This record gives sequence, structure tokens and C-alpha cells, in this order.
Amino acid sequence: MIRPADVIERKRNGEELPDHEIRELVLGYGRGEIPDYQLAAFCMAVWFRGLSTGETLAMTDAIIESGETIDFAAALGRKVVDKHSTGGVGDKTSIAVAPIVAACGVPFGKMSGRGLGHTGGTLDKLESIPGFRVELTLEELVAQVRDVGVAIIGQTADLVPADRQLYALRDVTATVDSIPLIAASIMSKKIAGGAQAIVLDVKVGDGAFMRTLPEARELAEAMRELGTRAGREVVCLLTDMDQPLGRAVGNALEIREALATVRADGPADFAELVLAAATRLVALSDLGLDEAGARARVEATIADGSAEDAYRRWIEAQGGDPSEDRLPTAPVVQAVEADTDGVVARVRALAVGVAALELGAGRRSKGDEIDHSVGLVLLKKRGDRVGRGEPIAEIHARDEATAEEAERRVRDAFELGDEAPEASSVVLDVIG
Amino acid sequence: MIRPADVIERKRNGEELPDHEIRELVLGYGRGEIPDYQLAAFCMAVWFRGLSTGETLAMTDAIIESGETIDFAAALGRKVVDKHSTGGVGDKTSIAVAPIVAACGVPFGKMSGRGLGHTGGTLDKLESIPGFRVELTLEELVAQVRDVGVAIIGQTADLVPADRQLYALRDVTATVDSIPLIAASIMSKKIAGGAQAIVLDVKVGDGAFMRTLPEARELAEAMRELGTRAGREVVCLLTDMDQPLGRAVGNALEIREALATVRADGPADFAELVLAAATRLVALSDLGLDEAGARARVEATIADGSAEDAYRRWIEAQGGDPSEDRLPTAPVVQAVEADTDGVVARVRALAVGVAALELGAGRRSKGDEIDHSVGLVLLKKRGDRVGRGEPIAEIHARDEATAEEAERRVRDAFELGDEAPEASSVVLDVIG
Repeated sequence: MIRPADVIERKRNGEELPDHEIRELVLGYGRGEIPDYQLAAFCMAVWFRGLSTGETLAMTDAIIESGETIDFAAALGRKVVDKHSTGGVGDKTSIAVAPIVAACGVPFGKMSGRGLGHTGGTLDKLESIPGFRVELTLEELVAQVRDVGVAIIGQTADLVPADRQLYALRDVTATVDSIPLIAASIMSKKIAGGAQAIVLDVKVGDGAFMRTLPEARELAEAMRELGTRAGREVVCLLTDMDQPLGRAVGNALEIREALATVRADGPADFAELVLAAATRLVALSDLGLDEAGARARVEATIADGSAEDAYRRWIEAQGGDPSEDRLPTAPVVQAVEADTDGVVARVRALAVGVAALELGAGRRSKGDEIDHSVGLVLLKKRGDRVGRGEPIAEIHARDEATAEEAERRVRDAFELGDEAPEASSVVLDVIG
Repeated sequence: MIRPADVIERKRNGEELPDHEIRELVLGYGRGEIPDYQLAAFCMAVWFRGLSTGETLAMTDAIIESGETIDFAAALGRKVVDKHSTGGVGDKTSIAVAPIVAACGVPFGKMSGRGLGHTGGTLDKLESIPGFRVELTLEELVAQVRDVGVAIIGQTADLVPADRQLYALRDVTATVDSIPLIAASIMSKKIAGGAQAIVLDVKVGDGAFMRTLPEARELAEAMRELGTRAGREVVCLLTDMDQPLGRAVGNALEIREALATVRADGPADFAELVLAAATRLVALSDLGLDEAGARARVEATIADGSAEDAYRRWIEAQGGDPSEDRLPTAPVVQAVEADTDGVVARVRALAVGVAALELGAGRRSKGDEIDHSVGLVLLKKRGDRVGRGEPIAEIHARDEATAEEAERRVRDAFELGDEAPEASSVVLDVIG
């Protein structure tokens, strides 16, 4: 049996720990045998010293070992795909990608999280849909992926329990933003979740965990290595989160935008990312398509309405009403007008996220209720020309007071310049 | 109210925290409102980032504020002195210094700790004496210092409760060896303990917390600053802990050596340190003596037997039997013989400490019972010439098996060379 204080001390001193020590630390914590204060000190030591690839792998394996795992390959005889994003403002990508991929004939199965950030997580967004159930059992998940071709559910207590405990601890001990701890947390969930091929969307910029491209690349490479060693095919997209993704920020508003994009009517940057992610997933699938073939298949399902059909089947399978007009709407809708002429140089993602949070679209702490109807829609984005008095965004609020506050914040989030900034793609790089 | 995770994050990022945040963190922890895992992460962040003088002062003040304080000046109308050591192998200095200083007419009042190291702490050593009570109330402490002139008692629950909690937490989270945390812990106890003048003995070397002179100096200066800001006079001695102090290591054996030294019959290095510490305490007292005068007074009380009388009065006041022949003795006494000729280059303090621990003289963990009778006596020390087969140490053990093990360890602790090492003083430097 390890002495946890010794293990912490050696990590603190910059030594590399043997696999079994990390395994015993994580599993002992998971079983309640090693107290949270020792894991808190360990995570802080890791924040300063990092983890080697071997240590990160040992941690990932131990987190997986703490609970059950799903074996889609055995249950379906098919290669199931999954997609994960490190999170950003306006990120509703999975909600559009899942039905598109399913419409292509590729089974998509994903366990998702709730948001503790500025807006809700994928689960919160899906819960904007009346009746939608996120709490499926593992058996229901497997059956739905087999029968409907697509499912997104909440984390169950059975998978990676040690990750939930560790994440909750890291959240209150300032140890969330550690690349190896993030990589182990994400990849343990993805590997236990049973998909054979995974597209990871690593966001970079003002509104993301990773503020710079080198950091994002480091995280992407760490996660890809963990996936590969576990026998998964992993492709990482490094994508821009310097401005919000798409136009809609807020739960029901984002569902509308995801659905519009499934119907080929989404904003350009978001549609580009959805196409990129869906194409990679289809190319990784067991359909035997190369990337060009995958792209053609994806575009066809969007164009011919089969992606929208898949969306409806999916939502209904999870008990939801897919009609757009059943989504909640906010009582107050108010325009934000530009106070000067110019070209949009930036729309600061973080500031927009904070505005959405203050409208009630996100959670400050775990117990907070989310208002699914509120949020905002950006009418102008980077590179757009605006005239003084022209609407640049639309606030959806529960009352005038919060709308006023958000209006001020959103206006401040816009940086106007004289010249158009260089055009840039939302997909900054692809690894794998 | 602070958000502890934010405070941890800013310290982690190397920012300097405002006083009130450190105060709320420590007091909130003391009241059980801030959980131990957040303090564990905080202490690890401090281990890496350190604390500024201002932050260390705020922490010291908050620890003091967590409990009661003693005001000797108000109770006695005298300046009471205290001495503290950062701890080392064979360190029984306070037990000799206290009665010498008292015999000089200077009231000495000290709260002491138990050892979690290789040998017992001062309290454990005193408890070798049959009947000796360390658990006095604060009222009894004050009365005894007033009436008998000297008292050493255990920490009470009333003083610096936050320090006890923090120390217990640091002990199991690999955050003990942080200079600002050590300084705040020691000085909060000393300041709350009520003495107006304090001599701090900062040990340096193999058998001490501080392995190098620069580290020891940093700790000494940090503690002196904290004391000075709290209106205390503080002198720091930096002293050698590369070899054990004196000859005796083990509880009852050290009491014998302390008593011998009070009678002018102690080993040279230990007698030198006792003289240095006692002289500084007397010079800091309200007797109005300069250092030469203080030294003469100290030497006189040792020479004329009044220091030994004070020792007896003190031990009896706390319920103990001062007769040397009532001290416990170990059943097995066994010599360690040199296996080669040479001059002792080093007697590694840490290795000797471990040997004493394994004999049963110390505690591995909190609940362990100490055997007061066991330990060892070094017959040779640095610079001594030895012949093959000549006894270099004497093991006092509870049985043959542990004696054998200790013999091997003690022999390994001796490094013999061809030439005598440079002579050196036990007192390496004095600050203040």
C-alpha cells in the first residue's frame, strides 16, 4: 500500500511516479480510502509539475478502472463514433453533428456534461427541448444507438466515478486548468464511453480553457496519445474561440441554430465546423469512405433533409418534442445598437459568455437553475461592417433590468476598427 | 466573504494576497467553515510560490487570533523569556537552559510540542521523568512561572488551535517544509505563548529541516521579522545539526545529559550551545545585564549548583521526581565497535535519528507509544580518533534484536577518515 503523503512529496519534488502509485492514489480516493485533502495537494503539485505521458496514461486508466465501461463494438457489431469539445461560448456543435452523422448511417453515441461555465453544457441545451430526457441507463443508451443511430445522454454514476469526484475537487481547489488533468478527465470518459473513433474539438482563445494555440496543441496531442494507446482512433480539431461560435448564445437559442444548421441554414462559421467534424467522424467510421467521400455524404444528408429527419427521430426517441415552435422564448427581446461606425475587429467571447451567464443562461455554481429561454444572438461578427445605430445583437431576457445590463456588456464585447481584420477559418488546425 | 478557490488560484498564480483574505482563510478553516481540501491546495500553492513578509505576518496574526493568548507581562510584571528550537537529533537544549536561566533570576515560560520525528520532542523527554506533568492549564503555567520561575508545558487546546489543525494537515499533504509556513507556525505559538524575549535555535544540516545555511538564515530572518513586528525581542542562533547534538539520543538518556550539563558535566558541543542560548536569554531579560555580564551570571549558576537546584525545584513543581536514578533504563546495553582505525569525519545525524526511532525512542505516526528508556550514546564524535575494535557508541535497547539492527545503523552513521576534519563551533551564526 502506498503512503499518499510520500507520493505527493515525490510529485511535488518533480519526480516521475510509477504507474501503480498513481493507480492506487486514484482508486483509493474513489473508494473513499484516501481523503480529499491529499488529492487536493496532489492535484496542486501536478498543476505545478505536470505529468509525463506515462503518468497521464496511468491516471486515465485508473479513472476508467474506477467504474464500468461500455462496449459498443460487442453490443452493436458496429464502430460507434463520438465527438467531444473542450467547451466555448455558443458551442452547440454536437447537437448538429450527431443527427447528421446518424443520417449518414454512422452510429453516434455520446455521454455529455452540464455546463458550469458561462452558458449551459450540451445537456442543458438539449433540456430546452420540452420532454427531452438526458438520464438514460447504459442499456437504454446502447439500445437507442442501435435502433435510432444516435443518442446523447448525461453521465451516469456507473462510468468513471473517480473522474466526477476528482473534477468536483479540482473545481474548488484551483486545479482545473492543468493540461494532463484535463486530458485524463476527458479521455477517461471518452474511452469508458465505448466509442471506437472520436473527434475532439479543442477550442482556442479568449472564451476557452486554452488561450493559445500552443497550449491547445499540447492538450490535443496529450489526448490523442491517450486515445491511441487505448486503441481508439482520434482526430483533433483546433478551433477558434476568440469570438463566439455561430450567432446564438443561450440554450434554446442554440437549439434553434443547431437545427437551422442541420437544415443548411446556419451561420457560416458554425456550419463550417459542423461540416468539418461530421466529415471526420464519417471518414473514421466503418463505412469505408475517404475524406472526400465522407464530405459528399455529409453534404448530401444536409441537402436532402435526411439530417433533419434524423434530428427529429433522435429527439423523439429521447422523449422530446422536436418542433421548433415548442422551444421556450424569453419575454423581453431587445436590440443592441452600434454606437459608432466601423468594422467588427473582435467580438470578445468571454465577455459575451459573461453577458449570457448574467441573463441566466448558465450556472455560477452547481445548484443554480438555468433559464433555457434567455441569451443573445449576434447579428454582426468579426469582419462585418456596421453603421452607427445599426443593430449588432439581440438580447433575449427575462426582464428589462437584466436586458439593460446585458446590452451594456454585449456592446463592450464588440471591438470596432477602421479596417476589416484578416479573414480566418474557424478550424485552425487538424491533428490526426 | 472570500471565495477560497479564487484565493487559492491567485496564490497559485504567484499573486500577493491582501491580509484580510489570508485572515479569512485561516480563521474560516479554524471554524470549520472552509474545508481541509482547500487549505491543502493552498498550502501546496504556498510551497511552490512562497509568501511575502506581509502575507506571512497576516497568516501568523490569524493563527494567533484563532485562540487565546497569554500575557505574562500583565500577570507577573516581569519580562518572561522563551526558547524554541526547530528540532534536531539529540536536542535537549531547553531542558538544560530553562533551569539555568531561572537560576539567574529570569522567568522562563515555554509551551512545547511532542516529537513526530526521530526522537521524542521536549515533552516526551520530560515525560521520562516519573510523575512529571506536562498538561498544565494556562493559569497553572502562569502561576508556576511566577512562583517557581520556570515551566515547560504541552500545548493547550486554547492557544493557536488553527496552527494545530494546519500542522496536522500539512503533515499528511507534503507541505511541512515551507519556510513561510514554518515561520508562521512557530512564531504564532511563541507570540501567543506570551514571552517578551525569545531565543530561536535554527538547526542546520543533515538531521534538521533546514539542510543548508542559506535556508536556515532565511527561516531565522523570517521568524525574527514576525517577532519584531509583534513587539518581541528575538535572537536567532544558527546551529550545527550535521551531527547529533551532545552524545545522548533518546528520551531518558537525554534527560541525564541535560542534567549533567546543568551540573557543568555535559559534552562540549552541547554545553557550548546551552551556554550560548542561556546567555542570550539572560541578556534579553529585564535584569539589565550586557552579554558579558549575562555570561558570567550563567556560568556562576552552573558552577555554584544553583542551576541544579532550580532544575529540582522545577521538576518537583510539575510533579516529577528529579532523582537521576529514578529515570527508566533499558534492559539491553550494547557497545558499537569501530571496524577500522581512523578519525571521525562525520556522524550522520539523520542516520542516528533513524536508529533511535527504530529502537522505539520516537514516533512514526501520531498514535505510537514512545519507549522512554531506549536510545544511544555516542562515545565518539566528529574529530575524535578511534582504533579498530574501540567502542564508538552504546545502544540502549528493549531487546537484542532491535539492538542488533541499531548497531548496524549506528556503525553506518559514522564516517571515518584519515585526517581530522576542521574544528567547528556548534553555533554557526547569531542573528540579532
